[in-house]
Amino acid sequence: MIDIPTLHINSDRLKADMETLAEIGATVSGGVSRLALSNEDIEARAWFAECVEAAGLLLRDDEVGNQSAVLPCEDPQAPTLLIGSHLDTVPNGGRYDGAVGVMGALECLRTIREAGVRLPIHLEAINFTDEEGTWQSFFGSLGLTGLLSPEHVNDAQQDNGAFRAALFRAGIRPGDVHLARRDPASLLGYLELHVEQGDKLHSARVDIGLVTHIVGRTTYNLHFKGEAAHAGTTPLNRRRDALQGAALFIIRAHELVQRRYPSGVLNCGYVRVEPGMYNVIPSNVLVRMECRHPDEEILHQMEETLLDLAKTCAAEHGLLLQPERVLHRRVAKMAPGWLKVVEDVCKHRGISSMPVVSYAGHDAQIMSAIVPSAMIFIPSVDGISHNPREFTHWHHIETGTNILLQTVLEIALNGRSPG
Amino acid sequence: MIDIPTLHINSDRLKADMETLAEIGATVSGGVSRLALSNEDIEARAWFAECVEAAGLLLRDDEVGNQSAVLPCEDPQAPTLLIGSHLDTVPNGGRYDGAVGVMGALECLRTIREAGVRLPIHLEAINFTDEEGTWQSFFGSLGLTGLLSPEHVNDAQQDNGAFRAALFRAGIRPGDVHLARRDPASLLGYLELHVEQGDKLHSARVDIGLVTHIVGRTTYNLHFKGEAAHAGTTPLNRRRDALQGAALFIIRAHELVQRRYPSGVLNCGYVRVEPGMYNVIPSNVLVRMECRHPDEEILHQMEETLLDLAKTCAAEHGLLLQPERVLHRRVAKMAPGWLKVVEDVCKHRGISSMPVVSYAGHDAQIMSAIVPSAMIFIPSVDGISHNPREFTHWHHIETGTNILLQTVLEIALNGRSPG
Repeated sequence: MIDIPTLHINSDRLKADMETLAEIGATVSGGVSRLALSNEDIEARAWFAECVEAAGLLLRDDEVGNQSAVLPCEDPQAPTLLIGSHLDTVPNGGRYDGAVGVMGALECLRTIREAGVRLPIHLEAINFTDEEGTWQSFFGSLGLTGLLSPEHVNDAQQDNGAFRAALFRAGIRPGDVHLARRDPASLLGYLELHVEQGDKLHSARVDIGLVTHIVGRTTYNLHFKGEAAHAGTTPLNRRRDALQGAALFIIRAHELVQRRYPSGVLNCGYVRVEPGMYNVIPSNVLVRMECRHPDEEILHQMEETLLDLAKTCAAEHGLLLQPERVLHRRVAKMAPGWLKVVEDVCKHRGISSMPVVSYAGHDAQIMSAIVPSAMIFIPSVDGISHNPREFTHWHHIETGTNILLQTVLEIALNGRSPG
Repeated sequence: MIDIPTLHINSDRLKADMETLAEIGATVSGGVSRLALSNEDIEARAWFAECVEAAGLLLRDDEVGNQSAVLPCEDPQAPTLLIGSHLDTVPNGGRYDGAVGVMGALECLRTIREAGVRLPIHLEAINFTDEEGTWQSFFGSLGLTGLLSPEHVNDAQQDNGAFRAALFRAGIRPGDVHLARRDPASLLGYLELHVEQGDKLHSARVDIGLVTHIVGRTTYNLHFKGEAAHAGTTPLNRRRDALQGAALFIIRAHELVQRRYPSGVLNCGYVRVEPGMYNVIPSNVLVRMECRHPDEEILHQMEETLLDLAKTCAAEHGLLLQPERVLHRRVAKMAPGWLKVVEDVCKHRGISSMPVVSYAGHDAQIMSAIVPSAMIFIPSVDGISHNPREFTHWHHIETGTNILLQTVLEIALNGRSPG
């Protein structure tokens, strides 16, 4: 085991970059709208490419629009350690979500290069395309891992016309996206620095979160089916009102998850009522339900329990339930050996850390399907996320980036195993 | 008091007319789609005009598209007794809703004319425009009573472009609709024969319903306002989820009305969730609530109680409630003297009758604002309405039309007061 140089990032340079970036797509409320493949996103990409070249790093891009800064190793056969996140945002989102991970990664490469430290691996700072799902969540990481399926971009299964047009406009050819796949054997793994988006670190006053798992997530369309009838002439006790069953489920489902699945979360974020007339009793109600849990087996139990509950609520109002599972992402386990590296680095520098679960999705969960992956969280004030009021103190960004830097050096120079 | 001739309608002729009419806009499921101002409605109007002229009656039409058959009195200064209903339908509605009232009224005029009975009043069988509200509920009766306001047809308050185009196409000039107003002094009153659309008569096995009231109706847009947040990272107990408050209200409001307002009905027929993303906690939910009651004062209390409940449900989830009253129609009391006439006529002919409340809206409720009005209901099998399965036995249609005929004769010849 060799002695690792204690390097520090250039905090002022990183801060200046973050401020410049926040201007691209800045909103009047102080947030950022840099939707994937939008003019703002394309502007941010061009600016990032300039930063990479100005730093004397290699610029790389691939067939799904991911772009990277590469600090190459002398041995071309050496594996690559990917570090990064995404520069796209939700509409009127925060300025640090994603951006910290990409710009922090770039800053690590710049710092290592300037210090003249030679690594036995290629180090690559990556900006993944459309993490937020303006068009397709995790488009970039799904493409890189080879997990993108044809229906994600073709028109056969669903109308992807506007998405395809946006891809073309950004210089991405839908027919070529499968070429972005990289051989897992060529990759050492993936590390991602990100704001927590929750309030666990903030309320515990801890600087660094060691992400042990990214929650699994399942989305259902629950169709409650009753009978349309005249809202005036049909007595309340003789209705088959689809909205009554749906509303009952929405209430009870939240109670159930709070009571039985304290580590789980649930959201009913979309409801459609048909025929949707004020004077007609609803015949069909669609409730889109999403549930998340950090344990795959419990997530599955939670789904089953919620479906049973939906059936019960439907039956209480004489309705039929048609559940449709529209998405499932498995729980992603982060590489324990690398979490240990992060923990060691924190201890060595006197920085507080604690294990946390990520309840938000990240490119790391996609990457973890093919290579060892780990995430480092820094505190979000009050846990506010996807909101212009998202905020992280600068000293946390600086600390997080330094921890990422030392973790990279430990892994690269001391060959620490992902475990 | 003179002796009233016992006339009988020509049942075969009325039945043949009803069958011909049901072909206009017939749907594959056995229902009828004759939406106001549609091609089918315009075809039905042309056919009705031919029926009127073929019967040797005068054809009248006005500036809101109402059309009538008139059996004129020798004295041009005599008042007019209006009888009728509407020929338009909801999408895929039943064949009797509205049609029975118009064609039954025409049949009464034909029967009286053929019998050579001279009345001391003008008798007019009217087909009101757009009772069902394809464009504007009660458009014809609102126009006739002078209750149509400029914003109903102008573009200033809302976008009425398509409505205006449809009016022009049907030969109705939006700028002239106020000319349809008739002087209440020229009218004796209004009688309407209609299918019940509820199941009270059917389940009580009674032939004729004496409509004492048409329910009052109030519609609210209830805006529940919370806060959007990340559906993964925000703990369930720290959310201000607008959909939780709305769902709680939808459940409790139905329970409350059943418990405290047994004569009232309620419907939540439309819900809009914003931002409507599966992974964002709802910040704004609009619930459109409609409540009806046959007693104006109790309707008002019911509204207040429901608004209080909505506020409570909102507060339980940390939400704000913004209620917006979008429509109010007062309870309409039918003319008791004329209901007595109907009751007497039924007794005289050995037909069973009972008082009922109309929970559906009718042109009679609009007409009652300016002239004495009354309604005669006939049974709907199982109370099914606004549905292709709406059905009324022919003998009830025949009986109802004969009762309408005798009621008209009693009022016209014996001068029975509306009371």
